[in-house]
Amino acid sequence: MKKLFYLFIVFPFLLNAQQEDVSQLKDIYEQSLTNGKSYEWLDYLSNQIGGRLSGSLNAERAVEYTKKELEALGLDRVWLQPVMVPKWTRGVKEYAYIESAPGKTTPVNICALGGSVATPEGGLRGNIVEVNGVEELQVLGKEKLEGNIVFFNKPMQANLINTFEAYGGCVNQRYQGAQEAVKYGARGVIVRSLNLRLDDLPHTGSMSYGDLPASERIPAAAISTKDAELLSTMLKLDPDIYFFFSQKCRVFPDVKSYNVIGEITGSEYPEEIITVGGHLDSWDLGDGAHDDGAGCVQSMEVLRLLKETGYRPKRTIRVVLFMNEENGLRGARKYAEVAAEKGEEHLFALESDSGGFTPRGFSFDCRPDQFEKIEAWKPLFEPYLIHYFERGGSGADIGPLKNGETVLAGLRPDSQRYFDHHHAANDTFEHVNKRELELGAATMTSLIYLIDKYGFSNQPKIKG
Amino acid sequence: MKKLFYLFIVFPFLLNAQQEDVSQLKDIYEQSLTNGKSYEWLDYLSNQIGGRLSGSLNAERAVEYTKKELEALGLDRVWLQPVMVPKWTRGVKEYAYIESAPGKTTPVNICALGGSVATPEGGLRGNIVEVNGVEELQVLGKEKLEGNIVFFNKPMQANLINTFEAYGGCVNQRYQGAQEAVKYGARGVIVRSLNLRLDDLPHTGSMSYGDLPASERIPAAAISTKDAELLSTMLKLDPDIYFFFSQKCRVFPDVKSYNVIGEITGSEYPEEIITVGGHLDSWDLGDGAHDDGAGCVQSMEVLRLLKETGYRPKRTIRVVLFMNEENGLRGARKYAEVAAEKGEEHLFALESDSGGFTPRGFSFDCRPDQFEKIEAWKPLFEPYLIHYFERGGSGADIGPLKNGETVLAGLRPDSQRYFDHHHAANDTFEHVNKRELELGAATMTSLIYLIDKYGFSNQPKIKG
Repeated sequence: MKKLFYLFIVFPFLLNAQQEDVSQLKDIYEQSLTNGKSYEWLDYLSNQIGGRLSGSLNAERAVEYTKKELEALGLDRVWLQPVMVPKWTRGVKEYAYIESAPGKTTPVNICALGGSVATPEGGLRGNIVEVNGVEELQVLGKEKLEGNIVFFNKPMQANLINTFEAYGGCVNQRYQGAQEAVKYGARGVIVRSLNLRLDDLPHTGSMSYGDLPASERIPAAAISTKDAELLSTMLKLDPDIYFFFSQKCRVFPDVKSYNVIGEITGSEYPEEIITVGGHLDSWDLGDGAHDDGAGCVQSMEVLRLLKETGYRPKRTIRVVLFMNEENGLRGARKYAEVAAEKGEEHLFALESDSGGFTPRGFSFDCRPDQFEKIEAWKPLFEPYLIHYFERGGSGADIGPLKNGETVLAGLRPDSQRYFDHHHAANDTFEHVNKRELELGAATMTSLIYLIDKYGFSNQPKIKG
Repeated sequence: MKKLFYLFIVFPFLLNAQQEDVSQLKDIYEQSLTNGKSYEWLDYLSNQIGGRLSGSLNAERAVEYTKKELEALGLDRVWLQPVMVPKWTRGVKEYAYIESAPGKTTPVNICALGGSVATPEGGLRGNIVEVNGVEELQVLGKEKLEGNIVFFNKPMQANLINTFEAYGGCVNQRYQGAQEAVKYGARGVIVRSLNLRLDDLPHTGSMSYGDLPASERIPAAAISTKDAELLSTMLKLDPDIYFFFSQKCRVFPDVKSYNVIGEITGSEYPEEIITVGGHLDSWDLGDGAHDDGAGCVQSMEVLRLLKETGYRPKRTIRVVLFMNEENGLRGARKYAEVAAEKGEEHLFALESDSGGFTPRGFSFDCRPDQFEKIEAWKPLFEPYLIHYFERGGSGADIGPLKNGETVLAGLRPDSQRYFDHHHAANDTFEHVNKRELELGAATMTSLIYLIDKYGFSNQPKIKG
């Protein structure tokens, strides 16, 4: 009897549901690729606004612009969530050179790391000592490092297929290099850009002094990969060469900014929230098209595509454009804090912050039983060449929502080109391919549609 | 007993073989990504030689260069296979404009299609009639078309995920547009560039007059997608506008050229040949980095990586750089013809001619039993994010080897950006990402290693 029940009652229902899903995904992809808005939004964010460093005028313009665009979508609610953010400014362009003999200087490309202090008035000049990562500091010790500039030159490992893994393998020299080097009496640090390619562009990124008093902080800058190779070679020829750099960055008091939020209220379970987002702030060297303009416009597009394809969500679908991911994560913390205060129930949160490249799939931070349910949807994505569904990390901005129950996920685009542009002057609109961006938006929308429709419980939920 | 035999004899052997394969693939990818030659070769082909149109001096320089490079690899044999190829030249840069009123002209970007005749001395001016593909010619008929220029404006379909499918859907207007339009008395044809993006670059490509006598041939040119949109809009406003274009292309008698071939002789079954290749010729507008410099250097890299990782092939592994894929396929036909004359047995042929983008997998033209064997290797490729193994087409240059027995395959890279560059002035070296190119080479090498090692028969082959 059970078998017959399955065959005649459940099976046709399943078939029908599956057909409906096939057709809905087709609509979503078609809309995104032929009538999408994500590329146009990104064009505006990148070319009419530009780099959106936290606390800058551009960041505020981006808040206004995206709020207005979300309002134009006719969502059920659009609002700004206030958050205090740090304000660090780069100041006039940095400069640096290698001095191989008195009067014999070779200019090199550097940029201040985000959060760094300025060099002393007139710049910083000193002998420079190369180390292969933070771990090597204690091998050399105070004897070799005191009074010198430390040159962190650990390269990203090219043999790793996932370039984020290669990034993870040496980002600590950028983030903690200065606070570690200062323990050995270093006067400044120069860090190899986190870029797999050899080129002339320095890549910025956040650094921290930990709890070091202001008076003990030393300046930190990134050097382009080509110039890192040059410096390393020159040091091999003559370890006594000098390095000079000058940067004028400053920290100002925190300023008020906002997370930009919009939502479609769920028709059946409005109290269950599905959040999708990226971060609205960016570094200042490029226009932040990949990091993370792409994630923002894709997240906005998720809600537009759901509406455009006529799907009425059962649950509340919320787009969050987080402020200050790059140098503080204040927006992410504020969002989670307010959600906790209000007792909001987040069923799922999805982040796109790995560039606007061809989507390959998702990484899920969730329990095995939740993952099992998600994995069953894989075949629906195969026509779109989405094959990657793995358990792993999700994203920095949704991280504070982690509670063991909420499923967290990150979009995983092809990662090969990401670090060519990451935090550098060439993170610009023309390096984002329209179709790749749109495929990402459609892939995110498809997953959110399925999660909204089926939830994670195996039992049909009793309403109310 | 059979079960026990499997458990104790066969199973450990299989485990061991699999471990060996895992380790060999790891070596191949690592070598390609950290110590590869493909990118350096492509740099030379693109920047020191440039566009390599069949019959041109550059094509001959590419023959010499790649032969020398193959020789430097220490292969067992390197040789040139003579083949007569067509020689078509573009001549001075084309020009064209839309004339909306006497003296009121708007310049547009065009380029002659490969194989087209020149416009008459002084250029061709006429009314222009838009059609949505070749199929629409007969709807309009002689009445509307005679004496006019036909404007084929069928766009590539953006909703198709595989952009080659979108290309296939309208390439006939480029290839056959002129020979069809002439039947209705048209004096020339202008074809929308086969590009999914809106930009200013015209995309060339081959066209054919079929068996039309020389005196009846009409000139054919491609127009950039942006200018196609412009022209279409202007025609809607005023169907009586004129179009003018001038091109000076010429056909010369066939000239002698070469396929460049190198091989590692098989240690156990030298008579079984595994061929890997791309085409050495390219169009003339860019430097042919994606089409198909990438495929050539990846194919060369396959043999280098096998040697470099210390693998000694059982079968003969042959790289073939085919001449004249773009406008004649003469090299491909010659290669298959000579192979047939010599009674060569091709076990497998692999082509890379879809750009140097992140590899996603392969398409196989083979029997189901052969495919089953190949599919069993899929898990070995998953760590490299290679998921796509499907039956389908392979490639133009290995097509003539098809005999129902030889397994044919094409590398399938991510296709989203391909037609942004295909046959246009921006098919250049700086648009190839080093890692993406290297991943392709490693993926091809891995497949060839497995096919060499295991063959396609389920029985161990008796030597001799």
